[in-house]
Formats: sequence, structure tokens, C-alpha cells
Amino acid sequence: MVSVATEPLLLAERRYAIVATPADPLVLENGWSLAPVTLCYEVCGELNAARDNAILITHALTGDSHVAGRYDQSDRKPGWWDDAVGPGKAIDTSRYCVICSNVLGGCQGSTGPASTDPATGRPYGLAFPVITARDMVRAQARLIAQLGINRLVAVIGGSLGGMKALEWAVTYPDRLLGAIPIGGAGRFHPQGIAFNEVQRQAIMSDPGFRGGQYYGTDGPARGLAIARMLGMITYRSDESMWQQFGREMRNPDPGPDLASGLGVAYQVESYLHYQGAALVSRFDANAYLCLSRAMDLQDLSRGFVSYEAGHGGIRAKVLAIGIRSDLLFPTYLQQETVRLVQAAGGDAAYIEMDSVWGHDAFLVDFHLIADRVGQFLGSLTKAA
Amino acid sequence: MVSVATEPLLLAERRYAIVATPADPLVLENGWSLAPVTLCYEVCGELNAARDNAILITHALTGDSHVAGRYDQSDRKPGWWDDAVGPGKAIDTSRYCVICSNVLGGCQGSTGPASTDPATGRPYGLAFPVITARDMVRAQARLIAQLGINRLVAVIGGSLGGMKALEWAVTYPDRLLGAIPIGGAGRFHPQGIAFNEVQRQAIMSDPGFRGGQYYGTDGPARGLAIARMLGMITYRSDESMWQQFGREMRNPDPGPDLASGLGVAYQVESYLHYQGAALVSRFDANAYLCLSRAMDLQDLSRGFVSYEAGHGGIRAKVLAIGIRSDLLFPTYLQQETVRLVQAAGGDAAYIEMDSVWGHDAFLVDFHLIADRVGQFLGSLTKAA
Repeated sequence: MVSVATEPLLLAERRYAIVATPADPLVLENGWSLAPVTLCYEVCGELNAARDNAILITHALTGDSHVAGRYDQSDRKPGWWDDAVGPGKAIDTSRYCVICSNVLGGCQGSTGPASTDPATGRPYGLAFPVITARDMVRAQARLIAQLGINRLVAVIGGSLGGMKALEWAVTYPDRLLGAIPIGGAGRFHPQGIAFNEVQRQAIMSDPGFRGGQYYGTDGPARGLAIARMLGMITYRSDESMWQQFGREMRNPDPGPDLASGLGVAYQVESYLHYQGAALVSRFDANAYLCLSRAMDLQDLSRGFVSYEAGHGGIRAKVLAIGIRSDLLFPTYLQQETVRLVQAAGGDAAYIEMDSVWGHDAFLVDFHLIADRVGQFLGSLTKAA
Repeated sequence: MVSVATEPLLLAERRYAIVATPADPLVLENGWSLAPVTLCYEVCGELNAARDNAILITHALTGDSHVAGRYDQSDRKPGWWDDAVGPGKAIDTSRYCVICSNVLGGCQGSTGPASTDPATGRPYGLAFPVITARDMVRAQARLIAQLGINRLVAVIGGSLGGMKALEWAVTYPDRLLGAIPIGGAGRFHPQGIAFNEVQRQAIMSDPGFRGGQYYGTDGPARGLAIARMLGMITYRSDESMWQQFGREMRNPDPGPDLASGLGVAYQVESYLHYQGAALVSRFDANAYLCLSRAMDLQDLSRGFVSYEAGHGGIRAKVLAIGIRSDLLFPTYLQQETVRLVQAAGGDAAYIEMDSVWGHDAFLVDFHLIADRVGQFLGSLTKAA
């Protein structure tokens, strides 16, 4: 209540844009023509008359368009990056028009596997196409064009959102001044693919999965929860788990026989179970599979002779941000991005968040980079 | 064929010892009296007349008693640590009598959840007791006593085997001269507990698990495979996966729709699936659950006022070996062991394997520490 009184209320609203129709489908990297395609998006701040003050935020795997503010004054929680986005904040909505769209392939208002397949009249399920980060970015570019924006100040995102920010810089070199990938990469690493595959297997092995046509049923709830539990481990760090949970037991006596001994004994287990259940209540398993595979497939070398060459066309200034304790996107990936952009004659800088929070630091510890992000954004429009 | 001709053949043989009977049960840490208890074990090398040249090898989670040599000249593969154990090797069977027993709670000949519960006449399943590393060590100590050995030269093991080596030094300070935990710890860390819990959930969520009474059926084959896939990630490192698999695709075109796109696309996925299936063919899911929980529960503070105090009674010389790239037992754990033993006035040294192989380096890259292990063992009997 106090925060509502002292902070200006940023009112958020879901909007929808049809970015592809049967007459003008989205042609995907795999050759398919996808239509219709709807993107759900939100806008914070005002687009100026020149339409040149827009910043696009690209969200992570299970994120959505609700980046900041509240839908209603009574909302208990604001958007997922309210620490970063708002009036007077690093991504300052009194200066910039901030746009965030739910990803193609997702399940929070944009077209994804749970959407109706016009060919069958039922949800796509696994008949939904394989989607790449480039496809996601192409769909977003249509939204940005519909909004009358020719050039973005910057594209900013963490995790899969960082992959998309870099993909923007490669696919549309003239349509953004800057890119800020946080805990991102130009391509995913084999250990990351491995973690994703285990998560997918947990979902697809659940008998509730029914080959992806589980709509109207409980679906693969246990499998999706297990996937999320593993995901959460990779979003955190051992260090942060020591700080938050240590070896503290929820039940100091785990029981005499295995039947009781295999229950939730440690606080860290309890945390994982809570996180697993929370995702099940808000996320579609097929969308999780679709986006997880898109992470694996992301590779800036696609369409170029090499990974190095993929960085050659980047004209945006790149601020790549790594997180010291990141398990899912280790810092060598962001350092590699900077090295390759520089080697190709581009402008790139690396900074590192000294956080124990692992991959999630881009959400939890944004304050560590707030000033640098604000300065970087300021420098982009000053130079333009 | 050549290796058989040039190397002396070390003939291995499974032996069985009954270490607890209804008249003399094994009293577990949880208060239960377990009987009968059989341990399967193997011996390489000869016990000398003084019976003071024995070394005990403690195996990892899914290991067994077959540490070295071959059961038969025609065996394609020798025991799991044949690189380390044999005539003229670092753990020299022409000098030492090497003993390795399958763990209590396991499934390779020793009493575990798949054994017959005398109370019901059917396999224990989840009626098997919760087992701790201390219980495992107590069962082993009975075996060692049966063999007429009062004092071991050393207890050596990697991973859970390293935990057991340290537990030996705490529980039986006068019965070993040295302990070599490799990639071990005095207690498991919260991230490790978290990885274990996800694996257990994968097994227990499989409908084939049937509450642990799956004997005579296929059992939770998919769940156990998923658990092993995740385990394998934690036994390896991102670095070694880059070297071995990179982003190489098994199927360069992952298919147009998700149904095909979610198949095995990358070589690293193929590797994980292979490893998952391989474990299912040789391991019991309940034993996996039992031993996984034992890792979580291991804590040298048990029975002492603090974790520090748990190290106070150690009189064996400790050589704690860490692996630079170890994800499952990070090097801070072995360094902590050394610090705490030293702080309590004990004799401990730390060395680190500079290996990319992650946790599995204790198997794959043993040659990196062979000389140091051999020297350490030599120093123990020289000093005695």
C-alpha cells in the first residue's frame, strides 16, 4: 500500500496484434507458412512523435508480456522486471516507450502450441512447427513495424531473451541502435542442451502428456513440475542455495523406511516442489517443449558460413552482461559474444554481475547493473 | 587381445559374506535392526601373514564390487577402476590386498531394496530402511573383521565412495592409516540434494514404479533412464561436452513439426539416452533411490556437536582430491575437508586434478593422480 502511494502507478494493459494472416503468413525458417499469428504485448511509456524512443524487452523461457507495472491498482505483484522498467528506473518509461511481447510459441496470449490449428480446429499440440529464435524475432519485427517504429533504441533481454536480443542485431542490423543480452548467448552450449533434453523427457514421459493432445485434461502435470524443478536448479547456484537453504531439513527425521524417507526432507527440496507446482498452474507443457527446443537450436551461424561470420553484420552496439555464478549461460558465452563482435569490427563491451544468484540474477539483482544499463541506453540516443 | 598377452591377468571373483544375522543384526542409525545382511565383495592381491596390507575401495552410487581384473579371460571389459588397481599400478595388488564390497542398499549382490524382506517373503521395495553412509561403513567394518583384518592401510573411493572413505576415518579412527576421498565430501551440498531430488521424482513419478513394488515387471524404466540422464550431466562438465559433442547434430534437420523436432537431434542427447538405457539394464530403481538419499543425508556432524567437531576424531592421514571441473562435488568441498581436519589437529592434504572430465575424472583421468596416490599409500606403511 505504501509503495503504491509513493511510487507513480504504472498501469499495464495487454494488447494483441495480428502479425500474420493466411494472406500474409509468417514464413518460418523450416519453410512452413504459419497463420494466423497473434502476439500479445504490453507498452509502458509513450512513443514520441518521431517514434524513435522505443525499447523492446525480450523475455525468458517462461516469461510473458507483463514486464512492469500493474494491470490494476489492487494487483499484489507488478510485472516480472518492474525493478528495471518504470518511470525514473534504468529503463526509464518517462523517456522511453518500452514494449514487451509474449514470444511466438509461448502460451501467454501469443500464438503457440495451445492455439487452434486452423487445419484441424483443435489445438496444435505437437503439430505446431519447430520455432527458432529467428522466427520469434521476425514475428516481433512485424509487431514493431505495425506500431510504426522503424528503429528501436535497443533490444534488451535475459536468458532466451538475451538470445533474442542478439538475434535482433543479426537479423535486423539497421533496426536497433543497441542490444543488451544478459546471461545470453549466440548459441546454446551442449550442457544446456542436455539439461533441456532431460526436462523434455520428463514432460513427454508423463502418461498425461498423451502425445501432446492433453488439452481439456490435467496434462503432464508431474512431468512439467519435474522439468521446472530441474530448470530452477540451473537458474540458481549452489552458493545461493547454501545461503537460502543450506542443509536445513523440513523434517529432521526423514523416517525409518524408504517410503517415508523419500518424502520432502530438505528445505531445498520443498522449494523445488513449490516452484514446480507454481509453473504447472500457469504454463503449457507443449509451449515449454517448443521454447526449450528453440533455445537448443539457437545458433547465430545459421545462414552464415561460420559462427564468427554470424557476428559480422551486427551494427548495434552490444553490451553483453554475464553473471559470475551463472550455470545455465556461463560467462564464457557472453565473453565470446563480445570477442566475436569486436573481431568483426563491431562495438561490444562486457560487464559481469558479481552475484551469487546464478542465472536468475538478471531478475533478482538487477540493481547491480541498473546504472550501467541506464548509461548505455543514454549513450545510444546521444550518439544517434 | 594384445593387452591380455602383455598384462598379467588379474582374475576376479565375486564372494559373499553374511555380516548380520537375526541373532546379530546390523543396528542402523535409525534404530532398526537389519538382518540378514549379505555383502558381495571381491579381493585382488594377497593378504599378507600379518594381515596388515589391505586397502578397501569404496565405490560410487552405481558402482559394484568388480573394481579390477576380469572374471574370465574372455571378458571384454575389466572392473571399473582397472586403471588404478592391479599389479604394478598405483594401488598395487602385488603389494596390497585390495578389497571392494558392493554397498549396503545396493543391487549388485549386497542386501538392498530388491532383497527379500524376511517379514513378508517378498522384496523389500520401499519397506527397506533408510540407509546412511555410516550404516554402509558399519556393514563393511564387519566384513573387514571377518577377513581377520584389524587395520586397513587405507580406504579409497570417489564420489559417494569418497564420502564413505571419510566416514570410515570418523567412525573407525583406529582401523585405517589413510583415507583418500576423491571428489568426495563430509556432507552433501544443497544443489546436490536438489539434483538428487529431481532424479528421485523422475523415478517415483513413473507409473511403472508402483510404489516400489515393481519386481517382476518392467518397473520405472523411463523414470530411471531420466534420472541417469540427469546424473550423467552432473558427472560430466560443459567443457568435456564441448570436446566430445559440441553442438553436433545427429539429425541436422530436426523436422518441421514439434512431433519430429523433439526427437533426438543433438549428439549430446543421443549420449544421454544411451547412458540412461544402459543403467536401466543393470540397476534397480529402489536401490538408486536408497543410495541417492544416503548421499543427501551424509553429514559428518551426525553424533557430534558440529560439522567441525565431526572431523576432530580423524586420525588417519587424509589425501583429499578435488577435480577442477567437478559439478557434483565442487572442489570447495574437498578443500573444506582438508581445512577442518587440519584445524582439528589432523593430517590432511589437498590435491586437484586438472581435468575437463568433471566428476567422472576419478575414473577417466586417474592417471593424473596415479603417482600421488601411489606415493601416499607408500608413505602410510613406511610411517607405520
